[in-house]
Amino acid sequence: MSNRILIIHGPNLNLLGEREPNVYGNQSYVALNDMITSHVESLGYECEVFQSNHEGAIIDRLHQARLDSVGVVLNAGAYTHYSYAIRDAIATINIPVIEVHISNVHARDEFRKNSVIAPVCKGTIAGFGRDSYILAITGLVRMLEGAKND
Amino acid sequence: MSNRILIIHGPNLNLLGEREPNVYGNQSYVALNDMITSHVESLGYECEVFQSNHEGAIIDRLHQARLDSVGVVLNAGAYTHYSYAIRDAIATINIPVIEVHISNVHARDEFRKNSVIAPVCKGTIAGFGRDSYILAITGLVRMLEGAKND
Amino acid sequence: MSNRILIIHGPNLNLLGEREPNVYGNQSYVALNDMITSHVESLGYECEVFQSNHEGAIIDRLHQARLDSVGVVLNAGAYTHYSYAIRDAIATINIPVIEVHISNVHARDEFRKNSVIAPVCKGTIAGFGRDSYILAITGLVRMLEGAKND
Amino acid sequence: MSNRILIIHGPNLNLLGEREPNVYGNQSYVALNDMITSHVESLGYECEVFQSNHEGAIIDRLHQARLDSVGVVLNAGAYTHYSYAIRDAIATINIPVIEVHISNVHARDEFRKNSVIAPVCKGTIAGFGRDSYILAITGLVRMLEGAKND
Amino acid sequence: MSNRILIIHGPNLNLLGEREPNVYGNQSYVALNDMITSHVESLGYECEVFQSNHEGAIIDRLHQARLDSVGVVLNAGAYTHYSYAIRDAIATINIPVIEVHISNVHARDEFRKNSVIAPVCKGTIAGFGRDSYILAITGLVRMLEGAKND
Amino acid sequence: MSNRILIIHGPNLNLLGEREPNVYGNQSYVALNDMITSHVESLGYECEVFQSNHEGAIIDRLHQARLDSVGVVLNAGAYTHYSYAIRDAIATINIPVIEVHISNVHARDEFRKNSVIAPVCKGTIAGFGRDSYILAITGLVRMLEGAKND
Amino acid sequence: MSNRILIIHGPNLNLLGEREPNVYGNQSYVALNDMITSHVESLGYECEVFQSNHEGAIIDRLHQARLDSVGVVLNAGAYTHYSYAIRDAIATINIPVIEVHISNVHARDEFRKNSVIAPVCKGTIAGFGRDSYILAITGLVRMLEGAKND
Amino acid sequence: MSNRILIIHGPNLNLLGEREPNVYGNQSYVALNDMITSHVESLGYECEVFQSNHEGAIIDRLHQARLDSVGVVLNAGAYTHYSYAIRDAIATINIPVIEVHISNVHARDEFRKNSVIAPVCKGTIAGFGRDSYILAITGLVRMLEGAKND
Amino acid sequence: MSNRILIIHGPNLNLLGEREPNVYGNQSYVALNDMITSHVESLGYECEVFQSNHEGAIIDRLHQARLDSVGVVLNAGAYTHYSYAIRDAIATINIPVIEVHISNVHARDEFRKNSVIAPVCKGTIAGFGRDSYILAITGLVRMLEGAKND
Amino acid sequence: MSNRILIIHGPNLNLLGEREPNVYGNQSYVALNDMITSHVESLGYECEVFQSNHEGAIIDRLHQARLDSVGVVLNAGAYTHYSYAIRDAIATINIPVIEVHISNVHARDEFRKNSVIAPVCKGTIAGFGRDSYILAITGLVRMLEGAKND
Amino acid sequence: MSNRILIIHGPNLNLLGEREPNVYGNQSYVALNDMITSHVESLGYECEVFQSNHEGAIIDRLHQARLDSVGVVLNAGAYTHYSYAIRDAIATINIPVIEVHISNVHARDEFRKNSVIAPVCKGTIAGFGRDSYILAITGLVRMLEGAKND
Amino acid sequence: MSNRILIIHGPNLNLLGEREPNVYGNQSYVALNDMITSHVESLGYECEVFQSNHEGAIIDRLHQARLDSVGVVLNAGAYTHYSYAIRDAIATINIPVIEVHISNVHARDEFRKNSVIAPVCKGTIAGFGRDSYILAITGLVRMLEGAKND
Repeated sequence: MSNRILIIHGPNLNLLGEREPNVYGNQSYVALNDMITSHVESLGYECEVFQSNHEGAIIDRLHQARLDSVGVVLNAGAYTHYSYAIRDAIATINIPVIEVHISNVHARDEFRKNSVIAPVCKGTIAGFGRDSYILAITGLVRMLEGAKND
Repeated sequence: MSNRILIIHGPNLNLLGEREPNVYGNQSYVALNDMITSHVESLGYECEVFQSNHEGAIIDRLHQARLDSVGVVLNAGAYTHYSYAIRDAIATINIPVIEVHISNVHARDEFRKNSVIAPVCKGTIAGFGRDSYILAITGLVRMLEGAKND
Repeated sequence: MSNRILIIHGPNLNLLGEREPNVYGNQSYVALNDMITSHVESLGYECEVFQSNHEGAIIDRLHQARLDSVGVVLNAGAYTHYSYAIRDAIATINIPVIEVHISNVHARDEFRKNSVIAPVCKGTIAGFGRDSYILAITGLVRMLEGAKND
Repeated sequence: MSNRILIIHGPNLNLLGEREPNVYGNQSYVALNDMITSHVESLGYECEVFQSNHEGAIIDRLHQARLDSVGVVLNAGAYTHYSYAIRDAIATINIPVIEVHISNVHARDEFRKNSVIAPVCKGTIAGFGRDSYILAITGLVRMLEGAKND
Repeated sequence: MSNRILIIHGPNLNLLGEREPNVYGNQSYVALNDMITSHVESLGYECEVFQSNHEGAIIDRLHQARLDSVGVVLNAGAYTHYSYAIRDAIATINIPVIEVHISNVHARDEFRKNSVIAPVCKGTIAGFGRDSYILAITGLVRMLEGAKND
Repeated sequence: MSNRILIIHGPNLNLLGEREPNVYGNQSYVALNDMITSHVESLGYECEVFQSNHEGAIIDRLHQARLDSVGVVLNAGAYTHYSYAIRDAIATINIPVIEVHISNVHARDEFRKNSVIAPVCKGTIAGFGRDSYILAITGLVRMLEGAKND
Repeated sequence: MSNRILIIHGPNLNLLGEREPNVYGNQSYVALNDMITSHVESLGYECEVFQSNHEGAIIDRLHQARLDSVGVVLNAGAYTHYSYAIRDAIATINIPVIEVHISNVHARDEFRKNSVIAPVCKGTIAGFGRDSYILAITGLVRMLEGAKND
Repeated sequence: MSNRILIIHGPNLNLLGEREPNVYGNQSYVALNDMITSHVESLGYECEVFQSNHEGAIIDRLHQARLDSVGVVLNAGAYTHYSYAIRDAIATINIPVIEVHISNVHARDEFRKNSVIAPVCKGTIAGFGRDSYILAITGLVRMLEGAKND
Repeated sequence: MSNRILIIHGPNLNLLGEREPNVYGNQSYVALNDMITSHVESLGYECEVFQSNHEGAIIDRLHQARLDSVGVVLNAGAYTHYSYAIRDAIATINIPVIEVHISNVHARDEFRKNSVIAPVCKGTIAGFGRDSYILAITGLVRMLEGAKND
Repeated sequence: MSNRILIIHGPNLNLLGEREPNVYGNQSYVALNDMITSHVESLGYECEVFQSNHEGAIIDRLHQARLDSVGVVLNAGAYTHYSYAIRDAIATINIPVIEVHISNVHARDEFRKNSVIAPVCKGTIAGFGRDSYILAITGLVRMLEGAKND
Repeated sequence: MSNRILIIHGPNLNLLGEREPNVYGNQSYVALNDMITSHVESLGYECEVFQSNHEGAIIDRLHQARLDSVGVVLNAGAYTHYSYAIRDAIATINIPVIEVHISNVHARDEFRKNSVIAPVCKGTIAGFGRDSYILAITGLVRMLEGAKND
Repeated sequence: MSNRILIIHGPNLNLLGEREPNVYGNQSYVALNDMITSHVESLGYECEVFQSNHEGAIIDRLHQARLDSVGVVLNAGAYTHYSYAIRDAIATINIPVIEVHISNVHARDEFRKNSVIAPVCKGTIAGFGRDSYILAITGLVRMLEGAKND
């Protein structure tokens, strides 16, 4: 049986390190994924990192995840704010999905304050820079291992 | 010099364990605080837990925190959604404040989707049950220790 | 076991008799409370009247009510229109709370038309002048005594 | 001179007992009217119960009430939320009208939160089940008898 | 000349049978398409079923349909509510497109009440479960065969 | 036991054939009802056609339908957009009601885009001209006969 | 051929002279209709005055007017602000309808500022007291007699 | 003492006859003013016609009118929809002002549905083509001569 | 070098003393300007009072002020609420502009609550009657003289 | 009899000098109060400065002010924007209250543009830095001494 | 016959070079007009540059343009966002008008995102600095010369 | 080093010439691209035309453009109105992007009035038919060549 944790980076995240460094920091995208993978593996899980700028490809990967993964950490980028199709994909599969953002989305543009996927995710983490992923993975694993304290 | 991390529980959180167990779990409030304190201390910091149902008392404690604490984890309860006075208090002090919620506030009442304090907090964590506090403390400590990865 | 009915007057109600007599009448605040107490006692219950201008104090008293009272008649004054914290307090305790207003709030300022606490109260009474309290107490007692007709 | 109190049931209330029993209880419509009539008569007034699903018929009956009744208890059903014509009828006649609802309308659909007739009624009572009528009648009679306490 | 009727299933519909069975039923996706194909062929038309989670792929297929099909039955899934690009594609091609939904979209989330494609479709059918497709095909064929009664 | 299907035409539909022929076609109202009746009878049901411009009369007829009909096809005309009283009537009776419109209401005036009755109807069909009724009857019968495919 | 001008008074207008005299004046309803009739007849037309509090009855009378009248002066009372059914009736018949109001509706309640029937009426007159009818009749007759100056 | 009636044409009305003839007719601007002047004089008043495209000039002329005119007929053109300065000018002077529009403004652009000057005018007339002025003058004169029928 | 303080009165302020005396008092416009001039001169500055009902003239005068004045006290009257052109003029010139209102604009019409010029003015004073100007001048002079206390 | 002027500083104002110096200046809170007290006393009044972060405490102090003060200068801080309870307190007491803000609130966050207390205050002053208090005191004293110029 | 191209600069544009140089550049207003005139003449047309801060003057000039110009390039400044009177003027004249802005208005204040004149202009150009005028003139000339490529 | 100008056509633009010819003209898509290419090359730049109906593919191409192009002319079609993901892509790359539309989008559907990409583009051109591209290319080249006049 699978023990894979799937990390999905949405649109424009592949340019991390190039993109607005004052918002997203300047650590490279490769370094971020190395850090993520190490953290997942240190917790005893397999890690896969998937990135796409295509809404449909993210939906396809989420569908497949119900067969090959135990949980998902999803940074949907700008799709966070309008992709009801991704929302439905999350609601359709029966594994936990954690919403993550690098920056504090509430302190930026008005449109970034509304997340259409938040109501169907299990949890949300934003604003810790790349540590947002570390915290999300930790939280997801605790959920998976029945360590839920509430 | 202080190395205290201050945990602030806002209105109605003192009744955790009694209050809507399907939303908040049924672990007692005392057990939650024990878990929080242990986690903070295991990371090498001093821990103080403060609870009040009074908006003004939360503001007073935040003010004092600028003198006696290095960071704050704040669950402002319902004040999250309308207390611009708490927002100003957070903006006034120069230590990091992390917003935390036990439940996934986005999956509940419409009015709970808007946080007036989020834009002035450093990060936000919601939906992990009581683990939300554990993740928030971990994230805060990493921030404090310069381990910010972005 | 308790048979206390708790009456909570919110902000500015302590000045009844002085405040806008054309809206609230000119019977004194003391006389109102005497009338309320007599009515509660005539129905075989103990009566306590609590007044505060502090949102937090109203929440504290509601919390305590779950231990020392069988029901609450609450005139939350202006907090009616924005205190989600009081709303959560009402939802947290498991005794019936009746919302009451002296004036017809719908015929006054636009902002008075929305009650954020109404959805978690058992019933609402407004516009009967000070008789609003008498009717609320009667209704609460009938609820408590299983005389609910629906 | 008249001493009739007129009870007006608006649309769909004739099916009480059949209609959504979890919202409206399952006491029959006939039993409700018996209870109402007894209460009115016990207070020394004549009682007439009128029901119609027709907005125009309710207006006609309100007009006539200015000649044959001393006060009205009105459950306008769904017309509560959009019938400005009934509102004008209430404003036109010079006898007191009390708005009544069986269920707590604020805890149901969004559209039920707005009452277009409330600003021209003397008082409003909601959420006490069928006791809402009993309280409304009591309140109306106290108004009529000069027992207004404010 | 073509006599193909094209059925387009939008995002997440490929998981029908797995997805929220209380909303969508538990008949399998394969069985649905068999039913659809049989119905189309019984009316003397060729049937093609196309599914994609990609907005762009749906647009591409709609474009091609102007060359190879006589009409389209489109369940755009969540794209229904925000894809102005699909709307423009429908408006661009000169064959009739019927909007179809399995569930009663008006009885679900608020955001599902608005269809941005409805104004450019010829007709809309929702809420009949999988029979929605059967009715849509029947209606489309009657349109095509000039049996329009208005 | 009844096997009647009730067709309700709301306000202004009695003038079909006269009214804006570019929107509603020019087949006469009598011919429409003949077509409807034939279709219902061909499916083995009894048919009654009811028309009224009176909101209250439509409610009365819906109430009666719970006793004498097995299902309803309702074109509520302009009442579709504001009659919460008809909405409540539909919710009150326990037989399926199908919402039908001749024209594509979404392609006309802004106010026609919102249906207050849709959330309590089983299904909705719009835009097929007079065939909308044929499809609605077919769909209703399939529902009644347990042919629901989801 | 008909040369009747139909005057329709909507809900509550039958109580003119009793109703809020500061808004509507205190001339009696009978005197108003006498004045109207004289004015219509002095212009060489037959006059019929129709009043109803029933939305459906007003629609019925408008329908009939297409057969027995040459034009309509309509004071729809509060229905002005929400009756899309009356709006559709006006749009359906092919004789001119003039909207009239006694008071300046724009200087009263907020909800009275929006007329849903105005877009389908030929002209609107408001605020001239009972002279509003005189001016409306004059304007209608000039329209009918081809004296339109634009 | 003055017996002048002042006619004010606002922006773009000087091009009447040239401007969108399907909306405003093609009678020339000069002919309109001749018609207006004749009508005013036939009623025993002096007439002055003033036109300006300048908001300030219209305000200046309204101010002066309080000294040299007995009433004003004002077609404020597009200023109708946003000139709160003209509104204040009307409210400042103590002579009656009638709002007039040639076309039925409610049947045109959305922004034309709101008149910011209507609440401070005595009456409003729209949609009668150039007869709107004739009716407005007639109505104004009846007001002035105490022929107000309400 | 200039030491002129420019006072700009916007539309309708020239009629002060005549205009709604309950709102604006009945001291004459001339007396107001004498009071203003005396106060400015007593502080050692030259005073010019400018009034216009023309938006463009106010803009022209503001432009010129950058060359001939050291500061401006501006009562923009109704232009306050919609003149983005005056707003841009204030933002363009590099001398301080103080917004002033005689009445408490927040206690009057809804539209008077929004000032489009406030964000580009240095300060705002409202509700002190004609003393509003005195306070504004005093405040402006303190600003100019570096007496700013923050 | 009292001649005390009460100065109320609301939430977070106790940190003036520390808080965002670019917005509020860096003069200390103590120095501000010294300046205020001197100014009040120089005008022949007694001065009391009260500060609280508690909404309820501000209400309590306002209530007491009706007995021990002749006027109030109130900087309600963030409560300005949502405390209807403070609004009611101001409306309840019969002494003048002046609203004051150090910064130009209209040039900051969107939510700071709305003051719920402004409609019940006598006057408002904002944007003059700490001089806002000086001007407010001066204006209040002129009001008190009957020097109102309007 | 005329071959004049009219350039209209609206309010505050006369201060270009002085006004917010970071937004509008610091080339002088005279140099801009020289550049514009050269470009127009190089294309074989006569050029007139008109500037006014007066809404009415811009309308007057637009009216005259129908007689003396073949096309207009209009930078309406802040009037862009609320002058429905200028909009009507553009719609009234039968020559093409091009809307132009120096800065990218969509990246500035919220209120600058809405243009009330855009729907009646032929084309819009914004954000190219002073080159916006060059492009607008080029585009206008191509329109005039029938070089329209669509 | 690259001197390529990239032209991106968004969804449905591949059908130009077929699509609504009254809006978009009937010149073929091939001819448009030939015209574009010629114009780019005549200015000394290399031209690439890219078209996709896929949001993700447009983002991918924009990303690549930061490496292989000096500027972009983007007609995002309907994605203009909701693709925050494309907006982020434009903000991420550091080459200028010009927004272009063939038709005057402001004169069409309401939803077409809002561009979510405009705030991050350098300039916008709309309404010149296919000349919009010519002007955009010209403007882009002037930007690139430092010929910006502001």
